[in-house]
Amino acid sequence: MGEFDLIAKYFERPRGRAVLGIGDDCAIVAPSPGMQLAISTDTLVEGRHFLSTVPPERLGHKALAVNLSDLAACGAAPLAFTLALALPRVDEAFLAGFSRGLFALADAHRIELVGGDTTAGPLNIGITVFGEVPPGQALLRSGARPGDALWVSGTLGDARLALEVFRGQRSLDGDAFDTVRRAMEQPQPRVALGEALRGLATSAADVSDGLLGDLGHILRRSRVGARLAAHDVPRSEILRAQPASVQLECTLAGGDDYELVFTAPAGADDAVRAAGRAAGVAVTRIGLMEAEPGLRVVDAEGGPVVPQWASFDHFKS
Amino acid sequence: MGEFDLIAKYFERPRGRAVLGIGDDCAIVAPSPGMQLAISTDTLVEGRHFLSTVPPERLGHKALAVNLSDLAACGAAPLAFTLALALPRVDEAFLAGFSRGLFALADAHRIELVGGDTTAGPLNIGITVFGEVPPGQALLRSGARPGDALWVSGTLGDARLALEVFRGQRSLDGDAFDTVRRAMEQPQPRVALGEALRGLATSAADVSDGLLGDLGHILRRSRVGARLAAHDVPRSEILRAQPASVQLECTLAGGDDYELVFTAPAGADDAVRAAGRAAGVAVTRIGLMEAEPGLRVVDAEGGPVVPQWASFDHFKS
Repeated sequence: MGEFDLIAKYFERPRGRAVLGIGDDCAIVAPSPGMQLAISTDTLVEGRHFLSTVPPERLGHKALAVNLSDLAACGAAPLAFTLALALPRVDEAFLAGFSRGLFALADAHRIELVGGDTTAGPLNIGITVFGEVPPGQALLRSGARPGDALWVSGTLGDARLALEVFRGQRSLDGDAFDTVRRAMEQPQPRVALGEALRGLATSAADVSDGLLGDLGHILRRSRVGARLAAHDVPRSEILRAQPASVQLECTLAGGDDYELVFTAPAGADDAVRAAGRAAGVAVTRIGLMEAEPGLRVVDAEGGPVVPQWASFDHFKS
Repeated sequence: MGEFDLIAKYFERPRGRAVLGIGDDCAIVAPSPGMQLAISTDTLVEGRHFLSTVPPERLGHKALAVNLSDLAACGAAPLAFTLALALPRVDEAFLAGFSRGLFALADAHRIELVGGDTTAGPLNIGITVFGEVPPGQALLRSGARPGDALWVSGTLGDARLALEVFRGQRSLDGDAFDTVRRAMEQPQPRVALGEALRGLATSAADVSDGLLGDLGHILRRSRVGARLAAHDVPRSEILRAQPASVQLECTLAGGDDYELVFTAPAGADDAVRAAGRAAGVAVTRIGLMEAEPGLRVVDAEGGPVVPQWASFDHFKS
């Protein structure tokens, strides 16, 4: 099967909202009048972003999910995406599963694949997503203010727990493993929550590299500090059954969660909870933004927790 | 050096036209009011799109050039781009050269890098470019009509000749090799020509996989045929010094040329030549579009030339 047959069989679908889709030199997309364009790009590499054991369908889902998560963190409404796929060889079972998972999530968000590129090479999945947002209303990392409440969506740490099981560092029974494995392999981007937080959240980021690292981006760009209540960080019942030190590491430094960490004015708790309900995801207050620079992680008694783990960095081991 | 330091040192630059650039979850770009967005994505993989001998500066140039070439083929004005870079390790000499070549071309087209992603992995360079085009004015592959003249810009075949020298299949003296090597490693995207052809050309594609293959896309999507005069296909003096069979193969099936192949109405020759002059690139008539499906390649005497070479396909050898 050649490159063009492969694209036609697995990636060409009826055109949706795009003016011109796959098959020409460029795709043509018409953003809604007056809207600004939000753009993000994320690449998945085996061993770094997924294990060789991942079912292709889940990998297709995750490749798009991590990109939609960036749009969510900006409060942008998804519009379209492109896919650059490097494959060692044409593996039809892989392509069938991958494209099924990819398009299931794309359909759920009513977006379409408008352009792509397939090449022979070590497996590499590059997606660029486009969303739209009203001028001046994108959620940024730079808007947090002292006195704002610090929030996070969903629960954190399950993806990291699954990774530790895969690595043989912990064990879980079958059902529990299936659940945390799904969190790792098939994260749900919080697109509806991001849109619901427009005009309400003062800053936002998605939790991809670990809560401490991603919150750190907000602190640096907003030039504020924060007090984070480690025991308040929401976690699943499965993670709650692990030793306290494991819970702490998985929730604070785990990564691959694709939840939103965000800040909102102190008086906006009810509005934030309403936004969470409207979006169908729990939101939890986990701390307070402060004028004093730096991040202070405290335990249930208010004593300091000293994080011993670096946030994930692709070029550090 | 970590991922974020690497981005800051080599890829973060003062913001230009973008509303929000590198450093947040998304970039925010505001297209000009009423314009549609042209999007294209192309990935470069070592051994497929470049050789390990390419100077990093030229590779940075080429990675962006092949993407700008897609915008040119649509007649779109470049706006911005994203870069997804997988690197086996942090190699500062490589990154310094690569980013220098990349930004030199970006600056020449006054576009900026608005988003990116760096990961550890086998070398893979993925770029997505955004351009803008007035509604309904994009050059498509589907607009050619019987009776239209067939045109190509610049000269074809030098990049393929250089590849054959690298492969040890031909030899050239030093100066000639330097010239064709530059054609291969540092192609010039025909952005100005593409814009000048808006409203004039009836179809266009860029020559990336070889003239016959890329012209084939126009024929299929326009549902027309063509008569192509092989001896009229423009070539450099260096290629002209090669055996006739080599000239034929390099110009018709070489690829990596990044010139534009396009069609225009029969009476528009003067206007097409004026567009070429305005854009600073030669344009040459090489054939005629016909109602009869299929491509007829003819020699100087009008006799048939039977191409023996397939156009480049990434999944065929």
